[in-house]
Amino acid sequence: MGPTFDDILDAARRIEGEAHRTPVMTCASIDAIVGMTLFFKCENFQKVGAFKFRGATNAVRLLSEEEAAKGVATHSSGNHAQALALAAKRRGIPAWIVMPMNAPGVKRRAVEGYGATIVDCEPTLEARETTAAKVLEDTHATFIHPYDDARIIAGAGTAALELMNQVEDLDAVIAPVGGGGLCSGTAIAVKGLNPAVEVYGAEPRLADDAHRSLEAGQLIPLEHTDTIADGLRTSLSDLTFSILHAHLAGIPTVAEEEIVNAMRLVWERMKIIIEPSCAVPLAACARLHPHLADKRVGIILSGGNVDLEALPF
Amino acid sequence: MGPTFDDILDAARRIEGEAHRTPVMTCASIDAIVGMTLFFKCENFQKVGAFKFRGATNAVRLLSEEEAAKGVATHSSGNHAQALALAAKRRGIPAWIVMPMNAPGVKRRAVEGYGATIVDCEPTLEARETTAAKVLEDTHATFIHPYDDARIIAGAGTAALELMNQVEDLDAVIAPVGGGGLCSGTAIAVKGLNPAVEVYGAEPRLADDAHRSLEAGQLIPLEHTDTIADGLRTSLSDLTFSILHAHLAGIPTVAEEEIVNAMRLVWERMKIIIEPSCAVPLAACARLHPHLADKRVGIILSGGNVDLEALPF
Repeated sequence: MGPTFDDILDAARRIEGEAHRTPVMTCASIDAIVGMTLFFKCENFQKVGAFKFRGATNAVRLLSEEEAAKGVATHSSGNHAQALALAAKRRGIPAWIVMPMNAPGVKRRAVEGYGATIVDCEPTLEARETTAAKVLEDTHATFIHPYDDARIIAGAGTAALELMNQVEDLDAVIAPVGGGGLCSGTAIAVKGLNPAVEVYGAEPRLADDAHRSLEAGQLIPLEHTDTIADGLRTSLSDLTFSILHAHLAGIPTVAEEEIVNAMRLVWERMKIIIEPSCAVPLAACARLHPHLADKRVGIILSGGNVDLEALPF
Repeated sequence: MGPTFDDILDAARRIEGEAHRTPVMTCASIDAIVGMTLFFKCENFQKVGAFKFRGATNAVRLLSEEEAAKGVATHSSGNHAQALALAAKRRGIPAWIVMPMNAPGVKRRAVEGYGATIVDCEPTLEARETTAAKVLEDTHATFIHPYDDARIIAGAGTAALELMNQVEDLDAVIAPVGGGGLCSGTAIAVKGLNPAVEVYGAEPRLADDAHRSLEAGQLIPLEHTDTIADGLRTSLSDLTFSILHAHLAGIPTVAEEEIVNAMRLVWERMKIIIEPSCAVPLAACARLHPHLADKRVGIILSGGNVDLEALPF
């Protein structure tokens, strides 16, 4: 079951004082380039550098005392791992993070820095799932999926809820789509506040499972992808597919080069650091321009965790 | 003659609506590292990506109609060139920028993009000055020096004026020192509002002319330097020396490696882009810690214009 609009309102109250109320930035020179008036919701400034802290905090704080005492667990090598580790630390409970042995050292250290326990596994989906199952069996921790979870989706939706309250008269909101948690929460929040505001997803062409699923009217999972937008390599779940299918006006897709160009544009013109996944909605504005020219468009900047040693420019 | 505190108040009114009122950011993890509570005044988000737009706008708007009609000129290959070009464009007057022929193409294009005329010169101080003199003779434009000018200093001081109004109970403010314009304006603004607040400069050890000048009690110009903090390679003028000498609590100096580490810390933890010059005050916090431990310290982040193709990490 997906979250309701009320669940997002509850999540917003629940995470208040824990998650940052991030600022909305504008940039006249980027507006001139894309031909829209853009409002960037800066979740790259969120704790752990990504919107993921909202959902993780909502989920951790929803646990009963009895559940919480046993801790939480997940499998992730990305922003969800850090977010869950910090959310657990702040509630004072243990967290186990199943992570492939080839995950970058910087990500492992970040998770360890938040006091979580890393459980190594082979870098395959099967190993990840069997290792996680073993952890749950041993610890009786609560499993918190990165996106296929109503608590996570409700938490993610609080970013769009804030954006809609920070900026008047938006015509549309665009969020990136990986597993679909952020875009699902965004859609429910936006439509709950004003059904007339359009919500779009945006995907790398190399990871266009959501685009193809919406076109086909059924879930088409993704095969292996190497898109530079590493946060968007995952596929929709049944839950996120059903939410996006119900609410979205479309999911434009963009080429890798367009993602890098959009990322660079934000770095150079706005002087803020965003990760490649986060540049996908801006890159998609060129596709949406025929429909959204001169409109007021909100963009969820999902995160700013990049490896400065391995930049694409 | 240097500007008075009232000149800074006037400048603030004059540039209102032209320059951005930039935000102040905080970062709990950097606070924990340096052992102070820091408030970053984000002039990297200013128009043209640097505080320089404040002074340039103040100077250009102070011109009489007759002066303005003849335009403005300067020599600079840095942020002042772009700032003056844009300020002139916004008043609808011509600008001539004397620039060494070996200046990076990206800087030339930025200045041209604002509609200014670039006048090439050989890359020597002498060529720069004789070329500028020729431009002034030909055009009767008004010369606007990058820092040895009370209008520029007053404009630069408006950043600290805003900071002091945005953050209560600061104990100290730190600004980088190149030619000393920003630090002079900062000192006059801060002391004008509250003489009890300490003002520090901060310099690269490879360009420590202000530090040595203050120690010696007389102006000691800088010889050639290659510090990575390219905005701080210039020397104080008599005017800026006298202001800093009158007001500053000290000018700690930092090594090149410390500048790069501080720059990287801001990129990674705050997710904002700052240029090397801009990282010098944060790097200097380690030197100031014995005196400023647990204090509330404002830092002027002077700019965010970096060449993404040539990062030091």
